[in-house]
Amino acid sequence: MKKVAILGSTGSIGTQALDVIRANRDRFKVTSLTCGKNIEELSKQIEEFSPRLVVTADETDALILAKRYPKLEVMYGESGLIAAAEDDSEILLNSLMGMRGLVPTYRGIRSGKDIALANKETLVAGGELVMDAVHKSGVKLLPVDSEHSAIFQCLQGNQGKRIKRILLTASGGPFRGYNRKQLEEVTLEQALKHPKWTMGRKITIDSATMMNKGLEVIEARWLFDVPLTDIQVLVHPESIVHSAVEFEDTSVIAQMGLPDMRIPISVALGYPERIPYEGRSLDFFQEGANLTFEEPDTDVFGCIKLAYAASEAGGSYPVVMNAANEVLVDKFLKGKISFVDIEKNIEKILELHTPSYNLGLNDIIEIDQIIRKEVMG
Amino acid sequence: MKKVAILGSTGSIGTQALDVIRANRDRFKVTSLTCGKNIEELSKQIEEFSPRLVVTADETDALILAKRYPKLEVMYGESGLIAAAEDDSEILLNSLMGMRGLVPTYRGIRSGKDIALANKETLVAGGELVMDAVHKSGVKLLPVDSEHSAIFQCLQGNQGKRIKRILLTASGGPFRGYNRKQLEEVTLEQALKHPKWTMGRKITIDSATMMNKGLEVIEARWLFDVPLTDIQVLVHPESIVHSAVEFEDTSVIAQMGLPDMRIPISVALGYPERIPYEGRSLDFFQEGANLTFEEPDTDVFGCIKLAYAASEAGGSYPVVMNAANEVLVDKFLKGKISFVDIEKNIEKILELHTPSYNLGLNDIIEIDQIIRKEVMG
Repeated sequence: MKKVAILGSTGSIGTQALDVIRANRDRFKVTSLTCGKNIEELSKQIEEFSPRLVVTADETDALILAKRYPKLEVMYGESGLIAAAEDDSEILLNSLMGMRGLVPTYRGIRSGKDIALANKETLVAGGELVMDAVHKSGVKLLPVDSEHSAIFQCLQGNQGKRIKRILLTASGGPFRGYNRKQLEEVTLEQALKHPKWTMGRKITIDSATMMNKGLEVIEARWLFDVPLTDIQVLVHPESIVHSAVEFEDTSVIAQMGLPDMRIPISVALGYPERIPYEGRSLDFFQEGANLTFEEPDTDVFGCIKLAYAASEAGGSYPVVMNAANEVLVDKFLKGKISFVDIEKNIEKILELHTPSYNLGLNDIIEIDQIIRKEVMG
Repeated sequence: MKKVAILGSTGSIGTQALDVIRANRDRFKVTSLTCGKNIEELSKQIEEFSPRLVVTADETDALILAKRYPKLEVMYGESGLIAAAEDDSEILLNSLMGMRGLVPTYRGIRSGKDIALANKETLVAGGELVMDAVHKSGVKLLPVDSEHSAIFQCLQGNQGKRIKRILLTASGGPFRGYNRKQLEEVTLEQALKHPKWTMGRKITIDSATMMNKGLEVIEARWLFDVPLTDIQVLVHPESIVHSAVEFEDTSVIAQMGLPDMRIPISVALGYPERIPYEGRSLDFFQEGANLTFEEPDTDVFGCIKLAYAASEAGGSYPVVMNAANEVLVDKFLKGKISFVDIEKNIEKILELHTPSYNLGLNDIIEIDQIIRKEVMG
């Protein structure tokens, strides 16, 4: 029985992780669950999975749950997240959204547990720091993003072999093929309609701007220790090839399947086993019958370029880019700025930024806070 | 330095294997080379690679070479092939065509060396026997066919994990999309034009009848120890995905690349290393931009059905099918029968055959000889 703690258990990844655990009661036991505000969903999860600790964002919600489940340990806020990250589980699934994920990931690693990582901001902002902690603690950092899980799977059995290229696939989002002018006119409603994956709102917008792919390039750089120049983005609208790796002999190993996040989640939670899954197989005569690839148009989707540049420049640049993006996406979701303003503002903020280097955890958090305040205005 | 013996060194696979060795002089040393009749090509190879033993098909050719290279050991015929298979190399590349490959493969295995196998008839006729010898000797049987090399690569890092399906890709050959009537009218010249791969004449015809894919299904069954029902043929005209494996969690791992036999050859010879290759990488915006898959039409290409049925029936059936196919392809190449007669006659011969089971090496050879004589008429 593998003991699992889940940060963000009522979100899209969290509920699908619980689907995997529900189907594999003989393999997994839940130790801690954390949510934001959805305590009704969390209550159902408590009754079904009997965790020992639950965490909410606010104190009032924590009090409600403490009354409802007198035997349960209930905490709230960041100290709660850290307690969940440091509980007695063997693996921590971090599916928090945004920078809030960084400290719990870091503390989980330092407490010696494997991390199933669905929080890409963790590596975007704190890549060097986090990977250093991973190497020192000797834990496994198992990616949950479908792309990074694919790359991880392609690398199994090829450890120690030099990677020639990582081929990171992208659906292209709802605005694939748009020119710059068309992009200027897109609405929030259009941006929230992702053609292939059902995801949270923030990641859906990131996918529409293709910043998501930029963040994933940076994530891949740290996870797989490859130079940015060896990571190539392939637009693949069918979302069947989840990513691939080219080795020194020009062999390309790819991972494919239906777009179903339960697969990468089960790969991470079950590692090194593969867990049988009752879901439908990919049908190469239906949805897999025609797989296409095209070059991303980085002149239209400038966020990809920004991400490469910020990561190349290093230091505080990716922290700033990520913080600015989070706030700007939120502003767009609230109807305060236009779609292309997200990219334009990130670019401006990066240009004006005076970088710092060799950042510790507190430096990263401080820079992140400063930029957020600045951008929120 | 890995010592390599090559059976069939002047053929398509043999010369490409020598390309790999030429580019990796620091990794490989050639011990023995064997050819059929092309002693001029063999002479060039002798001068370039300095083997200790060479083998020709006929005595007269052997005498010419013995005179030309007085210090070289020169042999001929089957005893020569066996001597090469049992030399002091660490790996034997068997790229002989047809059943002639069986005894040298078997003797190579028994002499304790790894086998790089490009001779599919070996496993079609003698699968049970050969795999039994492999397990007893503890040697590695490394596939050189592009499809089986792909499957082998997809299984690295997934050893011991249950295979749900093997997805064996097929170009579909020059007559893809033909109906039965059109197939009845094809000429030798048309059948010899393969759309993607440059190969020997026998294998090119096998590819046109799709018997090649039938033979590969049987080969895959033995190499990867999966039931026939878990092997699915995918027609994939672009020949970029060389094959794939679906695991229990519905994850599909595929191997892709340009159609270049030097890759699977180098995977087999270099195993467990991957050897850097200077050739061009697959371009996903050019030849890899549109990958299609369709169901094989086994009503038109009946050889696929015959192969599944013969392997399912077991015993002497696949030996008979393979022997009949070899002779009938040769008759077609000589203009003696029509293209569809290959399939029709194999079917008839299988129907009339009285099977035997639990075959030893000599039984297989005997049955093969009897069928050949019968079919040659």
